[in-house]
Amino acid sequence: MKNFQYKNPTKILFGQGQIANLSQEIPEDARILMLYGGGSIKRNGVYDQIINTLKDYTLIEFSGVPANPEYEILMEAVKTIKENQLDYILAVGGGSVIDGAKFISAATHYEGDAWDILAKKAEIKLAVPFSAVLTLPATGSEMNSGAVVSRRATKEKLSFGSPLLFPQCSVLDPTVIQSLPKKQLVNGVTDAFTHVLEQYMTYPAGGLLQDRFAESILQTLIEVGETVVNDPNDYQAASNFMWSCTMALNGLISQGVPSDWGVHAIGHELTALFGIDHARTLAIVAPRYYEHCFETKKEKLAQYAERVWQVTEGNLEQKAQQGILKTEQFFNSLGIETTLSAYTEDYNGSAEIIAERFTQRGWLGLGEHQAITPNDVQQIVKNTYTK
Amino acid sequence: MKNFQYKNPTKILFGQGQIANLSQEIPEDARILMLYGGGSIKRNGVYDQIINTLKDYTLIEFSGVPANPEYEILMEAVKTIKENQLDYILAVGGGSVIDGAKFISAATHYEGDAWDILAKKAEIKLAVPFSAVLTLPATGSEMNSGAVVSRRATKEKLSFGSPLLFPQCSVLDPTVIQSLPKKQLVNGVTDAFTHVLEQYMTYPAGGLLQDRFAESILQTLIEVGETVVNDPNDYQAASNFMWSCTMALNGLISQGVPSDWGVHAIGHELTALFGIDHARTLAIVAPRYYEHCFETKKEKLAQYAERVWQVTEGNLEQKAQQGILKTEQFFNSLGIETTLSAYTEDYNGSAEIIAERFTQRGWLGLGEHQAITPNDVQQIVKNTYTK
Repeated sequence: MKNFQYKNPTKILFGQGQIANLSQEIPEDARILMLYGGGSIKRNGVYDQIINTLKDYTLIEFSGVPANPEYEILMEAVKTIKENQLDYILAVGGGSVIDGAKFISAATHYEGDAWDILAKKAEIKLAVPFSAVLTLPATGSEMNSGAVVSRRATKEKLSFGSPLLFPQCSVLDPTVIQSLPKKQLVNGVTDAFTHVLEQYMTYPAGGLLQDRFAESILQTLIEVGETVVNDPNDYQAASNFMWSCTMALNGLISQGVPSDWGVHAIGHELTALFGIDHARTLAIVAPRYYEHCFETKKEKLAQYAERVWQVTEGNLEQKAQQGILKTEQFFNSLGIETTLSAYTEDYNGSAEIIAERFTQRGWLGLGEHQAITPNDVQQIVKNTYTK
Repeated sequence: MKNFQYKNPTKILFGQGQIANLSQEIPEDARILMLYGGGSIKRNGVYDQIINTLKDYTLIEFSGVPANPEYEILMEAVKTIKENQLDYILAVGGGSVIDGAKFISAATHYEGDAWDILAKKAEIKLAVPFSAVLTLPATGSEMNSGAVVSRRATKEKLSFGSPLLFPQCSVLDPTVIQSLPKKQLVNGVTDAFTHVLEQYMTYPAGGLLQDRFAESILQTLIEVGETVVNDPNDYQAASNFMWSCTMALNGLISQGVPSDWGVHAIGHELTALFGIDHARTLAIVAPRYYEHCFETKKEKLAQYAERVWQVTEGNLEQKAQQGILKTEQFFNSLGIETTLSAYTEDYNGSAEIIAERFTQRGWLGLGEHQAITPNDVQQIVKNTYTK
């Protein structure tokens, strides 16, 4: 186990009806920017619950945060905060809205060009306190301090983070998933599953407890995934799904062990090129990525097959292959296609384009050993084209 | 899954050499009370490392905190803090010293009789900030906000807690266990194992992820227990042991699910009557407690047998019985006797004495259903006498 430093100060209010307790968590005199996306929170009752709970606060709404939160729009929100002398942000939405709130929180007091927070990883010294009401379990942003922001003008999508950017409080009410479209539920299960894989599918590093925690989340997502997707009114499945998504990326399982994140790096490019949903790009890339990195990952792949999928037959290599196969079958069972050609006819040549982008950016080594070159990336993407 | 509210703000510095980073966590102008027990930290190098790291601080030492931290001694430390206008506490030790620091932290600013914090569960409104250097993995006090304090004069042992009593920072350096006597290592594994059982061995409550996290800790303790006890220089085993002890009682696995704590309630009485080590009383009581509560716990006992001990044969009842048997065998394998008669010849009559104490205190319902009566307690203790 490697040395680590870990702190996660976010307070979680978990369960049906917890939105009503939000007013106990936000300072009485807070002047709140309420940030959300489209109108779904008005249709599912979340908006009304929040407005009712926070009726005694000064509260200004800022809606229209898009699925990949955009710098230009977020800077408008920063302007709203300054013009109205607001001092608290409440993010109501999924990862995009919460990530957006983190950027607004950091940018409001930033002296200089706020784009540097993303482009130059400028240090955040002061942040506007914020909380979140999660409406779409998937990204884990509700209990971590990182975020991803896009800039349309330059077609960039950049990440940042700071210990000052943990939500003070996040409300996780599992009933919010009842009104989500099936596609978003499928994406949520897949996203959380792949988050865990990125922090687990490396090499045996002596983090015995971390491995088992990771396997616990994977097993729980497998156990409830089908029910969540087909019957989001099942509260037990919904609550375990929601808590699993949060635990998948709140920092706990990555402490003291290596991470990879190569699947995400390649997946982002498929979203950029073809507009494929983030989670689906992960499902396309992951099986081919693990096949390509088989030699360095086979011990963990076999352990995963044994413990998560109860594979008992075969030698280490055969078990490891079963691990990859079971993963792809799981994604397929949720209704996710795992070849690029299922999403676009224009896939030819994308492998070369993506590899070239990695080269240009100087991303010469993905993976836990930084050993995945642009040539490897090209081969991995090519292998996603068809079965 | 039940609703829950969860926050754990303690920062963990984990790994060899992390004591050196302590000065980055304590405010520069802090005036520190350094609290510890006997002289073991002077023999194992921990004391020198701390003094070296904190050489630029005002620091006053207070040693002699005993194994069950005593009210009278802790009030002396409160006096030292006030006389010297100290404003920070550093606890260096195991659960007793850290629990002691929590009481000192709460008592320093308490207006009125500080005993009320324990006897009347008086609310803590202001606490002295404190951090910890853990030297004995077992209790989890390094990452929670609860504590137990004894008062010799009245032979009482009472618990208290407050959200203000999380350590700001805890250093977990696995090499500290190298100098611990085997007996304390055995106790540590047993204590942590039983902490998990108390929060897990109830009835199926839909906390699928919580169950798997609990099973993860149990499996890891089983995986490393023997090595930790026989070769505490094995860093991988030591680090997984240490992190498991912390995760066993930092609040995570109990969120949203019922807890029991009946084994602890009865075990405390065996310590009070016969001076048996806390962990060993748990090992004596747990198997007989689960036998006695078999009907209400058999589903979880069987799940535990299957998942933690890989029991595949038999029906639910048989698997559940195997779960109890495997638990007792595990304690025995660590060198712990699980009958009361192995510790004292004076066991006769103790069941009646303990049951009577429960009656007098009005403790009429232990367990997750508050259904374990003093009569049940009497029977359970009687069953611990001999095999």
